[in-house]
Amino acid sequence: MSQNNTTTSFSEQDYTMMALAIKLAKKGQYTTTPNPNVGCVIVKDGAILGQGWHQKSGTGHAEVNALQALSIQQTAGATAYVTLEPCSHYGRTPPCALRLKEAKIKKVIVAMLDPNPLVAGNGIAMLQEAGIEVQIGLLETDARALNPGFLSRMERQQPHVRLKLATSVDGKIALHNGESKWITGPAARADVQRYRALSCAILTTAKTVIRDNARLNVRPEQLNVQYEFTNIVTDIRQPIKIVLDGKNKITPEVASGLALFDCNMAKNQSDNRLTTEDKPQVVLVKSEPHFEQATVDFKEFTNVTIVSSVYNKEKGFCVSDLISHCNQLSINNLWVEAGSQLSASFLQSQVVDELILYMAPIIMGKNAIDCIPLGPFDSMKETKSLNLLDYKMVGDDIRFTYQPINKH
Amino acid sequence: MSQNNTTTSFSEQDYTMMALAIKLAKKGQYTTTPNPNVGCVIVKDGAILGQGWHQKSGTGHAEVNALQALSIQQTAGATAYVTLEPCSHYGRTPPCALRLKEAKIKKVIVAMLDPNPLVAGNGIAMLQEAGIEVQIGLLETDARALNPGFLSRMERQQPHVRLKLATSVDGKIALHNGESKWITGPAARADVQRYRALSCAILTTAKTVIRDNARLNVRPEQLNVQYEFTNIVTDIRQPIKIVLDGKNKITPEVASGLALFDCNMAKNQSDNRLTTEDKPQVVLVKSEPHFEQATVDFKEFTNVTIVSSVYNKEKGFCVSDLISHCNQLSINNLWVEAGSQLSASFLQSQVVDELILYMAPIIMGKNAIDCIPLGPFDSMKETKSLNLLDYKMVGDDIRFTYQPINKH
Repeated sequence: MSQNNTTTSFSEQDYTMMALAIKLAKKGQYTTTPNPNVGCVIVKDGAILGQGWHQKSGTGHAEVNALQALSIQQTAGATAYVTLEPCSHYGRTPPCALRLKEAKIKKVIVAMLDPNPLVAGNGIAMLQEAGIEVQIGLLETDARALNPGFLSRMERQQPHVRLKLATSVDGKIALHNGESKWITGPAARADVQRYRALSCAILTTAKTVIRDNARLNVRPEQLNVQYEFTNIVTDIRQPIKIVLDGKNKITPEVASGLALFDCNMAKNQSDNRLTTEDKPQVVLVKSEPHFEQATVDFKEFTNVTIVSSVYNKEKGFCVSDLISHCNQLSINNLWVEAGSQLSASFLQSQVVDELILYMAPIIMGKNAIDCIPLGPFDSMKETKSLNLLDYKMVGDDIRFTYQPINKH
Repeated sequence: MSQNNTTTSFSEQDYTMMALAIKLAKKGQYTTTPNPNVGCVIVKDGAILGQGWHQKSGTGHAEVNALQALSIQQTAGATAYVTLEPCSHYGRTPPCALRLKEAKIKKVIVAMLDPNPLVAGNGIAMLQEAGIEVQIGLLETDARALNPGFLSRMERQQPHVRLKLATSVDGKIALHNGESKWITGPAARADVQRYRALSCAILTTAKTVIRDNARLNVRPEQLNVQYEFTNIVTDIRQPIKIVLDGKNKITPEVASGLALFDCNMAKNQSDNRLTTEDKPQVVLVKSEPHFEQATVDFKEFTNVTIVSSVYNKEKGFCVSDLISHCNQLSINNLWVEAGSQLSASFLQSQVVDELILYMAPIIMGKNAIDCIPLGPFDSMKETKSLNLLDYKMVGDDIRFTYQPINKH
């Protein structure tokens, strides 16, 4: 990721300042999507002059926010530390590379190039043409970790997919009669809130929505985050809910009894004002025979979009078609919170980046429902291998973060 | 656990010395059974004069070993720190309380009373009658943790029971065809060796023994322990193997093909010389109709004892009868390493003290065999609750130590 004209020699100050920029970038983690989290620090003669981070799509980028209160006298000759290559294009805001030039910044240190094809080196070129010294690659791994979803979408044209399961010690997600409230404790459920808030969309099934009458909403007051500038309650965006309904279980009559489709609530309550305005709140996915009628039936539901593209005529529900659709919706992070069948389909399709498994200290016993009905496998060699990335106590439960090892 | 004439005021030196005595006691953990692990430190004028621990049944107790190299001039007026109440009875060795008196020890600090009915306060009384000052209760919790099995046998007349399972993330212990080699990795299997070595008996089933042709032996070289005095290879004792064979699958013909019953190997190889001499190496448990014939059939197998007492005429295999039998055999620690049915029976019978579960980072999928087929349960309230005592990475696997929460 280094270019010919860059050097990899960084000073202690460089590391300190980039680490600060990364810390700043994280403050946008619940609000910037579909944009990436970016942080910026302006330094001159060893002193920090300005700090900024991107807060929300359509508002100032990190560099602009960091420079905002500074005069050209202050910034002339300064160094800018940015976690992502400054943009070079006119979007809702002018190019940041231009802004840095105007501020007479002398040197820009960038953690990583922006894989966005609209930028992708053009920002660096723009800076260099303006005579600004550029260094690339400082704390790049940490900078990448800021934006798994954005980078996945830009680099692989698919969202970063997290699959969530809550199981007992014996790997069950519900009793034989479907009862599953509650396997995990309040701390684990609050932790799920945090992951939902980090996600652009939650994927679930009609069955789950109907059974639990789940709103699948982020409740900001449960996130336990405090920011100096961002108002987490009003600025956090609610993830889109993608509901798979191939069997057409959700008619308008059913929907009107479900919290998820409650339009009035969606329009009035503060925690729902937050949906990115040009996005639908609920994407209701119907299979072919029901699609057209549903489009008519749901006309009154202003927060609902009907889609059928992820149901394949021959094979039924198709994970890769769904992934393509997510990409069309600019979804960076997809949170899959459904039953065992859909979970198995996702793992089978090798699109899961992280399996987030909460394991409760209980035994649910025989006839209870298996968490991941892959297979059946006839030899140990066929079983699905995982790579344990992280494990942590969350209340009385343990949260495991596994990376599925895909076979090609 | 304090007596009228004791005080609970201990000095910093007292804590240091008792902690050392506990550390010494641990050195006997693989060898002292059925005796407890005990450590002793002799201190005078702040200097450590002697250190000792109990190594093996029939050899010197901790106090005797600590005093061994010391003259009466040295020990007169000294303080002895002992992790367990000194014994008061003539067994294979004379009473330690008497030995402390002979050494003119001035003060004895004891971590805990010995629940063994042959001692149970008599040791303290004997010391006090000799004019020795006695303090009780220093680091008692840590001292108790040295001997879960011995204390369980003395206080509850049952062994401390550890139930071992090796599962996938989805709670399976074998594929539908029985294949289970290997779910967990080499580090977890070596860890199992350590638990086997800590156990007086391993309980398993004829099915498991036949399927895996398992020797269920402790391989000392895999234990990765180094002691200055104990020769771990020659002094470690092999746990008794208790094999449940209610369906009479193990005939002498079958047994002669199984490593577990290999008498020649048992007699000649160094790792099998170690069985406590007056104990049988294999306890083969037959149900009533097969018991008498088996007794005749297995006469040639000098390492095999045939037993039928744990099969109840009405109910078949009875966990509590097995527990009673273990108590007759002076088994402190029982390690249960069998299939899912026996594991469920043990949990159902509420005799499991620790569920040791190794979870491998794999998914074994549908039709694979559930680890603990309790129930079936119709509501979450009926499910079996566990208390997580410990969790630790062991190679690529995680080892959980759960304490089942029993309902009465």
